Amino acid sequence: MAINKIKVGILGATGMVGQRFVQLLDGHPWFEVTELAASERSMNKTYVQAVENRWKLPGDVPEYARKLVVKECNPNLDCQLVFSALDADVAGPIEEAFAAKGYAVSSNARNHRMEPDVPLLIPEVNSEHLALIPVQRKNRKWPGYIVTDPNCSTIGMVLALKPLMQFGISKVIVTTMQALSGAGYPGVASLDILDNVIPFIGNEEPKMESEPLKLLGTLENGRVKMADMVISAQCNRVNVNDGHTECVSVKFNRKVELSDIVAALEGFNPLKGLQLPTAPDRPIIVRSEPNRPQPKMDRDLEKGMAVTVGRIRPCPVLDWKFVVLSHNTIRGAAGAAILNAELMKMNGYLQ
Amino acid sequence: MAINKIKVGILGATGMVGQRFVQLLDGHPWFEVTELAASERSMNKTYVQAVENRWKLPGDVPEYARKLVVKECNPNLDCQLVFSALDADVAGPIEEAFAAKGYAVSSNARNHRMEPDVPLLIPEVNSEHLALIPVQRKNRKWPGYIVTDPNCSTIGMVLALKPLMQFGISKVIVTTMQALSGAGYPGVASLDILDNVIPFIGNEEPKMESEPLKLLGTLENGRVKMADMVISAQCNRVNVNDGHTECVSVKFNRKVELSDIVAALEGFNPLKGLQLPTAPDRPIIVRSEPNRPQPKMDRDLEKGMAVTVGRIRPCPVLDWKFVVLSHNTIRGAAGAAILNAELMKMNGYLQ
Amino acid sequence: MAINKIKVGILGATGMVGQRFVQLLDGHPWFEVTELAASERSMNKTYVQAVENRWKLPGDVPEYARKLVVKECNPNLDCQLVFSALDADVAGPIEEAFAAKGYAVSSNARNHRMEPDVPLLIPEVNSEHLALIPVQRKNRKWPGYIVTDPNCSTIGMVLALKPLMQFGISKVIVTTMQALSGAGYPGVASLDILDNVIPFIGNEEPKMESEPLKLLGTLENGRVKMADMVISAQCNRVNVNDGHTECVSVKFNRKVELSDIVAALEGFNPLKGLQLPTAPDRPIIVRSEPNRPQPKMDRDLEKGMAVTVGRIRPCPVLDWKFVVLSHNTIRGAAGAAILNAELMKMNGYLQ
Amino acid sequence: MAINKIKVGILGATGMVGQRFVQLLDGHPWFEVTELAASERSMNKTYVQAVENRWKLPGDVPEYARKLVVKECNPNLDCQLVFSALDADVAGPIEEAFAAKGYAVSSNARNHRMEPDVPLLIPEVNSEHLALIPVQRKNRKWPGYIVTDPNCSTIGMVLALKPLMQFGISKVIVTTMQALSGAGYPGVASLDILDNVIPFIGNEEPKMESEPLKLLGTLENGRVKMADMVISAQCNRVNVNDGHTECVSVKFNRKVELSDIVAALEGFNPLKGLQLPTAPDRPIIVRSEPNRPQPKMDRDLEKGMAVTVGRIRPCPVLDWKFVVLSHNTIRGAAGAAILNAELMKMNGYLQ
Repeated sequence: MAINKIKVGILGATGMVGQRFVQLLDGHPWFEVTELAASERSMNKTYVQAVENRWKLPGDVPEYARKLVVKECNPNLDCQLVFSALDADVAGPIEEAFAAKGYAVSSNARNHRMEPDVPLLIPEVNSEHLALIPVQRKNRKWPGYIVTDPNCSTIGMVLALKPLMQFGISKVIVTTMQALSGAGYPGVASLDILDNVIPFIGNEEPKMESEPLKLLGTLENGRVKMADMVISAQCNRVNVNDGHTECVSVKFNRKVELSDIVAALEGFNPLKGLQLPTAPDRPIIVRSEPNRPQPKMDRDLEKGMAVTVGRIRPCPVLDWKFVVLSHNTIRGAAGAAILNAELMKMNGYLQ
Repeated sequence: MAINKIKVGILGATGMVGQRFVQLLDGHPWFEVTELAASERSMNKTYVQAVENRWKLPGDVPEYARKLVVKECNPNLDCQLVFSALDADVAGPIEEAFAAKGYAVSSNARNHRMEPDVPLLIPEVNSEHLALIPVQRKNRKWPGYIVTDPNCSTIGMVLALKPLMQFGISKVIVTTMQALSGAGYPGVASLDILDNVIPFIGNEEPKMESEPLKLLGTLENGRVKMADMVISAQCNRVNVNDGHTECVSVKFNRKVELSDIVAALEGFNPLKGLQLPTAPDRPIIVRSEPNRPQPKMDRDLEKGMAVTVGRIRPCPVLDWKFVVLSHNTIRGAAGAAILNAELMKMNGYLQ
Repeated sequence: MAINKIKVGILGATGMVGQRFVQLLDGHPWFEVTELAASERSMNKTYVQAVENRWKLPGDVPEYARKLVVKECNPNLDCQLVFSALDADVAGPIEEAFAAKGYAVSSNARNHRMEPDVPLLIPEVNSEHLALIPVQRKNRKWPGYIVTDPNCSTIGMVLALKPLMQFGISKVIVTTMQALSGAGYPGVASLDILDNVIPFIGNEEPKMESEPLKLLGTLENGRVKMADMVISAQCNRVNVNDGHTECVSVKFNRKVELSDIVAALEGFNPLKGLQLPTAPDRPIIVRSEPNRPQPKMDRDLEKGMAVTVGRIRPCPVLDWKFVVLSHNTIRGAAGAAILNAELMKMNGYLQ
Repeated sequence: MAINKIKVGILGATGMVGQRFVQLLDGHPWFEVTELAASERSMNKTYVQAVENRWKLPGDVPEYARKLVVKECNPNLDCQLVFSALDADVAGPIEEAFAAKGYAVSSNARNHRMEPDVPLLIPEVNSEHLALIPVQRKNRKWPGYIVTDPNCSTIGMVLALKPLMQFGISKVIVTTMQALSGAGYPGVASLDILDNVIPFIGNEEPKMESEPLKLLGTLENGRVKMADMVISAQCNRVNVNDGHTECVSVKFNRKVELSDIVAALEGFNPLKGLQLPTAPDRPIIVRSEPNRPQPKMDRDLEKGMAVTVGRIRPCPVLDWKFVVLSHNTIRGAAGAAILNAELMKMNGYLQ
């Protein structure tokens, strides 16, 4: 093991998002996966046994992970940082137990996202919210802490909205067409989605309507002041493996030209120069072709960490409309939590 | 042949919509298909030869049509009424030539839809617009006339909006997820749509933003006064055979309750009692399940002539939002033009 | 209720095949569904409640079934005949209990298929095997009895092979491409099958290699003498809703011409004139187009009860090869068991 | 440009296989693409213009290719070697013209494959067939020459059969489930394949039944003696982007055990140590899971150059059966022709 790498664990390592963590952390320059934890069903099996018939990413389980023995999700793992890919129905108390024992927790679960002293973080969007960590530790008397990333459908849209905040955003209407991997495994039954659209995803719309307000809010006196805007979301499942496509309409507080929007999106790169390993060179890619972005063509750009925006055009009802595409299990889940952890380290929260 | 049936022809009989006409007119109680016409490629072949390897509906070509010889689209066909499934790039002059020779033309092409003296018709929505027929005849000195049906993505939404017009509609934002059959054959390449969404359909958004204004407009002094509302549309192609799904948000001029909306939609049946053969018993079906409508489950209700509405709920930005589903080649194309013709006959325009 | 109809029940009424029974028995001229039974989870609910979010056929639950209260699978149902759509892990003892109490059982489960005194029946293929019923009753001292239908992948192939038995069949190699509905609901996960083929279906190949030998065998002294042939099957799951496609190669005992095969297949109609309500007019449809049969185009022919055969051509290794298509939940499951019951009635086994 | 690289051109550079050449040759250590050629439609456009809306691989056109100007397919290109991705209807005379002018031609087209003096080559299978090059040159008085790779469905099967040739193969029956990309672009219409299987691919079965005989044949006195076996193929199109799945049954001349087969397949690596850049470390990967190989999981192993074999089990009719999977546009087309060219260079045919 590399001398200076930070030891990390993955909670919920056998699910869809857990598998992405295993894959994306293979060869990571800062983090070394020393622990994999999951539910009782997988305990004491090697990882490759635990995911037998359930490894759903192309190619095989990375070499480093194959023989790691899967442990229980108890805060006695040999590592400093844990990535949580736990289901929401169990994530809450487990993540708290880890933080209470001194672990840094970079979570993909929704449980603590909206709590006032927990950062809901996208490094390009609201890195200053990391200042909630000391608040959280003080409030909760924890040696460790929890940082969360947003819902997979939130994150693409918010990355596209952030550079437009300078124009004042008052209203957003969004309709999503979300990929199957967002529902985990086995998730959506094939009989339900072949030759079909399901115009409903449980709990998804409330998350898309509330999380952006915190992400785009400002930190004042140790609290997040929510952004002053209203969002309406309609969420649909479509027959796509990976990549959420979102049709967005936005109302601005002032008159904005197309060139303003393009310049703002293309010029957006607040992490530039920070050398975070998982940060994309271009967080937002603007396409001018009439029929892009498309999940199949654009989801893997910048190793799945870019958000692609296209079809920017006037909206007769609000002001402008466009289409946003992002990879839901990389930019929208595992990659997001890893990038969060990199920012945490950069800011001295992982000593 | 039945004594009193009206002889009808189908223009563009070999394409996707043309095939639907052939299928839906099989055994029609009022109309007897005596002529099938198409492009030069098909001329002088029997219909079954002409559609060899191109018949895309389940089951076989109906018996009555198999041996009909396909003719040129010239106005010398032995029939009184023609249904036009012609492509927009040729439909304009051909349909005019038929009207000029005295034929009634029930068209599915977009060419004449927005002309002031041509009815753009949905029988449940604006049957009074048939009064444009004498205006058109007088203007153009035609013994025949042209009546059009709306775009396949327009028709479902407008049927759902019509009963809500009593509450005053000022703004509509809609995002569509449209089926493959709307693009004709061969249409969308499989490599383009498998595991993908295409967030663009050529010319579709302008049609969805303009046609409803005419359909929902009022007839005043032989002209249609456009409805006073603004519509914004985002149109997407998804991997579904038939059935357009549309996520709609609406702004009303006055406060409306959920029960008002449901009552208005469920009570809507202006053709009730008219005995039009193709009219559905329930033009609008309201579903209360959280995950309906779905194309696979609901597109064939009422033989494909119903519009299904579900997920009616408040919109934080406008007022209410819901999902609309309709069969794009039946209610949205061939079935629409046939129902139009039935209304024309009922109103004495096919003597 | 019609005076003379036979009262029937459906065991396992909420699953995929159970739903097909409910649908296909709607309006049946001989049978009246008076009882629906399923697992504990559904008990005491109305059927429409029991299948909420699980009704997977287009359109709604038939009116007659909506309010029937789902009962336990105990042999105290008010009916004479039960159709069994039970899972194999529970079907065995339940079906036996019903037969022991005097019910006629027409089963789609695999449990009793290969037992020597249980008819494994396709009415067009081996109606004479019904003579096993009295043997079974005597052996087991049952007032009732069990009749089974074959596996969904077996039935299409055997219907195509039966008329060719006159030429002597010694060897068969078959590769299947099977539809999703064959795996029940939720069955195959969408992530497993989108953009994929799964070259394995548990227990399927042994069934395809053994069941045809019994079906094509001859009844001698109250026992079935297995057909003298060898079959090799490779079974695959493909991304198709309904309809199993099978590529078959056959070795005959004597020289056979194409015209012999076509004549044998097209002339095959042993139920002709019997007026069984579910029997197709044409049990085998031979197509001459180079690219048929196809599941999407041919599965619903004859209301899903036909088998379509195409691409008949020489096999350089065996003798002839061809492609067979049949609807797996109609001809291959529920429709098969209903037709079996009709034959049972016709032969006096349902008095 | 690197000093010692060989200049290469791509004929038919804008089609599906041409795009794969462009992608796979990006950064190739031996070859430098200096010329792109295609049909008249693309001439004098930059490559990125020429493939606008037709680039069908994930991600963007490689940087090196974007500004290359597409030329006509005339033998005046500035390069030594051309890769031909031409359609069969034009490939014949064009490839001959290039060879006659002194170019080495590594072709993916079927036109010259079966000609006696043209190598039909898979480097792992029949590298000694390169000795046909001097024969060809002498016969045809060409300074250049043509080498071909096999059909995309042939190549996977033959790679799996080659190591088994030691046991003597007399008969093979194969059924394929082939990916969409094999049909080019636009290729298969989405309406034809969604929820469907097409049991026919034009000209495919004759190629699968004849090409292996040449590939597995022996070179004797400047001619290929065809392998002494008989093959029967049934070819189907399924709804998969990339990766042909093939169910194979084989008859051996002598008794073979499972362990013999596995050892032969796993030990097969005739290119080991040759350092050909495109050669996979493991040309054949044997999987023991019951449900593998699968296109989605296995097609990209070894950068798409491996063949995956699984489900090896006895065949009751022949001797053994198994499933083969290979990437049809990499191992089965562009990657194959590049590997052929690497072998040509290694053997001194590209000085």
